Amino acid sequence: MTNIALIGFGAVGQSLAETIRDKHDWLKDHFGLDAKLVAITGRSKGSIYDLEGLDLQTLLDVFQETGNLEGYPQGIKGLSSMETITDTNAEIIVEATITNIKTGEPTLSYVKAALSRGKHVVTSNKGPAALAYKELQELALKNGVQFRIESTVLSGTPAINFATENLAGHKITSVKGIINGTTNYILTEMEKGTSYTDALREAQRLGYAEADPTADVEGWDAVAKIMILGNVVLGGSLKSKDVERTGITNITMEDVEKAKSEGKRIKLIAEAYMENNVVKAKVAPTWLPLSDPLASVNGTLNAITVMTDGLEEVTVIGGGAGGLGTAHGLLSDIIAIHRH
Amino acid sequence: MTNIALIGFGAVGQSLAETIRDKHDWLKDHFGLDAKLVAITGRSKGSIYDLEGLDLQTLLDVFQETGNLEGYPQGIKGLSSMETITDTNAEIIVEATITNIKTGEPTLSYVKAALSRGKHVVTSNKGPAALAYKELQELALKNGVQFRIESTVLSGTPAINFATENLAGHKITSVKGIINGTTNYILTEMEKGTSYTDALREAQRLGYAEADPTADVEGWDAVAKIMILGNVVLGGSLKSKDVERTGITNITMEDVEKAKSEGKRIKLIAEAYMENNVVKAKVAPTWLPLSDPLASVNGTLNAITVMTDGLEEVTVIGGGAGGLGTAHGLLSDIIAIHRH
Repeated sequence: MTNIALIGFGAVGQSLAETIRDKHDWLKDHFGLDAKLVAITGRSKGSIYDLEGLDLQTLLDVFQETGNLEGYPQGIKGLSSMETITDTNAEIIVEATITNIKTGEPTLSYVKAALSRGKHVVTSNKGPAALAYKELQELALKNGVQFRIESTVLSGTPAINFATENLAGHKITSVKGIINGTTNYILTEMEKGTSYTDALREAQRLGYAEADPTADVEGWDAVAKIMILGNVVLGGSLKSKDVERTGITNITMEDVEKAKSEGKRIKLIAEAYMENNVVKAKVAPTWLPLSDPLASVNGTLNAITVMTDGLEEVTVIGGGAGGLGTAHGLLSDIIAIHRH
Repeated sequence: MTNIALIGFGAVGQSLAETIRDKHDWLKDHFGLDAKLVAITGRSKGSIYDLEGLDLQTLLDVFQETGNLEGYPQGIKGLSSMETITDTNAEIIVEATITNIKTGEPTLSYVKAALSRGKHVVTSNKGPAALAYKELQELALKNGVQFRIESTVLSGTPAINFATENLAGHKITSVKGIINGTTNYILTEMEKGTSYTDALREAQRLGYAEADPTADVEGWDAVAKIMILGNVVLGGSLKSKDVERTGITNITMEDVEKAKSEGKRIKLIAEAYMENNVVKAKVAPTWLPLSDPLASVNGTLNAITVMTDGLEEVTVIGGGAGGLGTAHGLLSDIIAIHRH
């Protein structure tokens, strides 16, 4: 039995609960993983803890009806997120709250508290991974547990574990990619003839972009993710201010047309690379020749291309957002902890 | 110290020896892996065993000079491949001989002998994986060791471990891809206006195709690889005769032009999928719309697209052949064994 506590019950957290409900028996058969969610806490959604494990069907029914976790018929209610981490019998803490890229808080404190107490941490939150990966990795090592972050970049599409585990043995010299779905959707629509303003509005209507789209269109989300790739995959020490950043707000239809007429396509490319043995990174709209595998990555798809000494280029393409995909990224990390 | 014996000393085996020579210290720093090649045997190249580990620079120099391993100044010479597996102090047997897709022999016997004696096996040979994966996996499990086959498909580009480890937690419903570099090179050249005959001749000149190109152009190599993907990733029981197979020898310039005029591209696609809960597979030239990520995979590049319940499509693109790439695939498996 593997006891799991879940911090954060938005789209990702709910998808994870549904996935564990639906796949419990299959996970047990395939991996010997008997996954039990023992505690969940969500900002403004209450909290629930049952050391025997929550009945997920009951819990999800209650939540759907009431919008709150505390209508669950048994268990302990009212624990804070920190108490859920420190005072429950969970061995793995899954953190799926909203990213605070400035300070990483409160998640950073949650992660430290969990690792210090010998609990594994799996998170989709970009803050701790972007701001303090090395420190957290050392803390995990010291306490004999794992800190896993697959779903912070490209959601459930393998990116972190792909580069660090599948490509182990390769010296990786750079990572570049399309790592923000919203801007890729907008640029793809612009190539079809839609104006920036209309494409953004449509992205908002479809739920791809926030009401305030700054984090996406100005490149901040891509900055956080390329910091993670640079620091985790290339072993860098990038801080947010080190990343050169240009968003897509100045891209005009004329630019898009001109690129097209030259057999190219404009993509918001984030790249981490070595320069004089130091890891550098930048995010900028880039004119890609159509022969570049990244040029064919359209709509909300994301992709990364890893340059290695053993294979030249390797590219992974897949969905980069969404509750279900991200939940599966978290699940792959839970399985990896269980296996090793 | 991890003692490794290498069976097969062609392009792949030599690349692996060079890679271990070049990366020994880096592997130790990064993964704590102190990799020692203790024995090598190659068909018609002799064999050499030193239980303290071979000095790879000396060995590669001797081999380059004499074309034989036995000029190495010390150690035991003349062991057969089977003796190298059974009678040396190697913990990991790396098998990099030529595929016999009919019977899998002699590799199949080598793999069984190694696993039965509690030695891990890492192989790039498609025979055992295609013909007897389940049996060998069970034998490995029974003996507490691992049987790893990353480099059998897409050489060093992650494919097997990508699907089984990175995508753990996803139910995979199908795998399709471009898994033969020679035919992809020929089709790419044909699209540029070169005839099939000239493109094949150029592929032979560049070393992409054998003097007898049947295994590639008639689809047999792709059959072996899609059997591996179907049996390993989807859990099937495919035999060679179960795989519908059409090669590229009947593709004309007219076909290629017609596809192009319809905004499509002809690719030799191998696919494994579920039909009434049974794993099926086929290999056939397929007209892909240019929007399909596989349509942009040109030249000798390979790729697979995995369909999952958690993410829809995920695609990996990378080199599919070559000594250095394959050697890195083998190395990633060695590191995985060392880690777990």
